[in-house]
Amino acid sequence: MSVIGKVYLIGAGPGAADLITVRGAKLLAQADVVLHDALVEPELLALCPQAKLIAVGKRCGKLSTSQRFINKRLVDAAHQYATVVRLKGGDPMLFGRADEELTALEEAGIDYEIIPGITAAQAGAASLGRSLTLRGVARSIAFVTHARSNDDESSAEVALVQPSADTLVYYMARAHAVEIAGNLIKAGRRGSTPVHLLESISTKRECTWSMTLEELSNQSNPTESNLRDWQTSDQPLLVLIGEALAQRASRVINNGAQDRLILADRRRSA
Amino acid sequence: MSVIGKVYLIGAGPGAADLITVRGAKLLAQADVVLHDALVEPELLALCPQAKLIAVGKRCGKLSTSQRFINKRLVDAAHQYATVVRLKGGDPMLFGRADEELTALEEAGIDYEIIPGITAAQAGAASLGRSLTLRGVARSIAFVTHARSNDDESSAEVALVQPSADTLVYYMARAHAVEIAGNLIKAGRRGSTPVHLLESISTKRECTWSMTLEELSNQSNPTESNLRDWQTSDQPLLVLIGEALAQRASRVINNGAQDRLILADRRRSA
Repeated sequence: MSVIGKVYLIGAGPGAADLITVRGAKLLAQADVVLHDALVEPELLALCPQAKLIAVGKRCGKLSTSQRFINKRLVDAAHQYATVVRLKGGDPMLFGRADEELTALEEAGIDYEIIPGITAAQAGAASLGRSLTLRGVARSIAFVTHARSNDDESSAEVALVQPSADTLVYYMARAHAVEIAGNLIKAGRRGSTPVHLLESISTKRECTWSMTLEELSNQSNPTESNLRDWQTSDQPLLVLIGEALAQRASRVINNGAQDRLILADRRRSA
Repeated sequence: MSVIGKVYLIGAGPGAADLITVRGAKLLAQADVVLHDALVEPELLALCPQAKLIAVGKRCGKLSTSQRFINKRLVDAAHQYATVVRLKGGDPMLFGRADEELTALEEAGIDYEIIPGITAAQAGAASLGRSLTLRGVARSIAFVTHARSNDDESSAEVALVQPSADTLVYYMARAHAVEIAGNLIKAGRRGSTPVHLLESISTKRECTWSMTLEELSNQSNPTESNLRDWQTSDQPLLVLIGEALAQRASRVINNGAQDRLILADRRRSA
């Protein structure tokens, strides 16, 4: 317990190995040890073949390592290794519970540095080819989550909040998506507002379901079984809602997103 | 006018050359021509020494190229070069007016791909060492801008919107920051809410001013002249507001942010 290393809290980005920052990739290649989320793609871990890998939480509320244990592993690692990377999915400062890990490091007197990462909403917008903000249509965007973590003290359900912004993005929203859509319509959002549900963004498994807010609000009992339904997966689901996300008049194929949109359209008209 | 190239709309990130994504950096190194925002750092342009560089808008509403002209340059470039990069500060899909450029490309039948970039709020949070969301404190965050572009058709002032979210981030907010703070207090936000103003995030010129919401609301007539005031710069100003951004009990130096915070504290108590 003598080495006092430095800890790099790195945002892995949305999934694709080359959507990490250049700084993040360089630090991964120098790391002695990498403590990574369960959701981090294997491709990303291939960027640090020299490092000892330690898988720690979190997997969308399932089978995750408790935050307190992660904090302890991180502090222990800095006592054993010079260059410690904590690799978190997306951006560490957005729904990443970075604060708890930073507090633990500070209390232990360990130096750290934070490297931001592309968050799912950004990669989702890029994949869809839709801007999250749009002149004359959307000047504001809100990111929200209602997901509860394993070690939340309260057993109470999280109240669904409705931030007011032109574009809305809900993270880890599978369990609440239908209810959120219903609430937004009750609160005055138009039923025709475009909605996109995305999972495994930027990876080969990426899936997109496009519909209107009203259609989402009515999906509590899906009847179609020929296509895998968005409700059946255990991957984190991102929900994008807003007029800015409407289909432009003419669309060019972009990253294969067009095929998925056509698929979604077929679902809608079925 | 025969070549039909592909256009890569790349987010340059917040400023530092190594906070671009790996994918973005690789594409820059392959580009035949790069159309870049005036605000993109010279360091980033060093990643594409082989490419023809064309500076186009936008510079915080000043001296910018009109959007219509940028669209035309982009389409023209795709008729002259195989690999065209459009390099935009931050993330193209957040306040980047990407939609207008994508529409122009689609109308011209030009293929494109979008590579997301780290947006200023993410790099600012990393630099401050504060999480934008915080368990039990902040489940939602909103990004807003009130900045008007040169070629906005309306001459009317933009109404200040108040999205409701736990953490608020205002982009290009210098002109409105004091008024925004006053409005938020009138709307019920606590005067003690932490506020951080940041500019030139992730670059050597990065500056941070930390204060409370009430202090910001009272800064319409700054009297201190011994330190450069946040109101005197012409760089885009990012304003972060929220309880999640409070100083943790014990702080370790992170990226030099500590010095700037101490400076800001000194300003406050002066």
